[in-house]
Amino acid sequence: MKFIVFEGLDGSGKSSLMAALERELQNRAINFLRTREPGGTPLGDEIRNMILRKEGPAPTPRTELLLYEASRSQHVDQVIRPALAAGTWVLCDRFAASSVAFQSGGRAISEADVVMLNTFATGGLKADITVLLDLSVEESRRRRQGRGAVTGETEDRIESEADTFHENVRQSFLKQSREDAAAWIVLDARETQEVLFKQLLQSLTERKVL
Amino acid sequence: MKFIVFEGLDGSGKSSLMAALERELQNRAINFLRTREPGGTPLGDEIRNMILRKEGPAPTPRTELLLYEASRSQHVDQVIRPALAAGTWVLCDRFAASSVAFQSGGRAISEADVVMLNTFATGGLKADITVLLDLSVEESRRRRQGRGAVTGETEDRIESEADTFHENVRQSFLKQSREDAAAWIVLDARETQEVLFKQLLQSLTERKVL
Repeated sequence: MKFIVFEGLDGSGKSSLMAALERELQNRAINFLRTREPGGTPLGDEIRNMILRKEGPAPTPRTELLLYEASRSQHVDQVIRPALAAGTWVLCDRFAASSVAFQSGGRAISEADVVMLNTFATGGLKADITVLLDLSVEESRRRRQGRGAVTGETEDRIESEADTFHENVRQSFLKQSREDAAAWIVLDARETQEVLFKQLLQSLTERKVL
Repeated sequence: MKFIVFEGLDGSGKSSLMAALERELQNRAINFLRTREPGGTPLGDEIRNMILRKEGPAPTPRTELLLYEASRSQHVDQVIRPALAAGTWVLCDRFAASSVAFQSGGRAISEADVVMLNTFATGGLKADITVLLDLSVEESRRRRQGRGAVTGETEDRIESEADTFHENVRQSFLKQSREDAAAWIVLDARETQEVLFKQLLQSLTERKVL
């Protein structure tokens, strides 16, 4: 079984690409579980709401990171590790790399502190493959706003951060992908869904993941 | 100004001793703030409820620790540091030593990990004095049950842990007090409120805190 994480700015197409991979795994009769962070457990979903809501008291940057990590440790202990132990693949929308990108890249907490907290919260569990859907901040904003106009959804507390915040997040994702190239697949999120899925499948095959 | 923390098993008399010290500070026209952990901020109180409630999904040990630390970093950033910066004394019911006692002593998370998380959450802030009201587990349980019979309060998720858990918590508090004797005042919680307050005042005076 494999633990595959999808990362990228909001609007980068993680959901569509995950859905395409799910269909592929179904066709191959591979058991899998799809989950997300923050959240993925009932307690994690409560924590997710505390982090993302725009009303109510907002966490300070260190508190925000600790809440993400609390959600993560619950998720790892109760969902991800048990699934992997049972031979089930896990597809996860965001994981530890997001904390490095958002809390170190975006909030300027030291990367060493974020990595240390990730290690504690995951008990050392790492994704086998992290798929980064790379997108410019401008295009991410355009897509989020387009989606909001259709669904009526408004931006959450993180989405509504300034462009410089999101630019730092993007650059952190790219930096992480360069530093651990064997475990990352970087795709250009401007491509069509068909092209992205073809590229993903090819990369996973080359790396003998699929 | 001074940052004074009160630690001890539930029922050890922290509230009464804090109230007595508050009266003393009032008499001396010293500005102070009384607060508590987990909690002490609106977000911290939400986190407190997540940790202590007996209904709803329970956190795993690592998640529990991360939630305590999230509550703590919010409390330090928004309440304790601003108060100390304004020259206000802070009296706090439980602080970082409780995480060492409950999560390392009680839950067997490594003490190094708890200390690392305490350091991150507090940004290195330490209590000037930690007052430990030392009490046997048996007497703590007797007092909690006596209080419950009067108030109708039931035990929370932590209070309802087994006696061995609470014994490990007590021993961790005593160990911490021995390792940093200059910053700890250890009192025998079986003494009367009057004797305890007299001993506290004498210790604070000897240490030139008051």
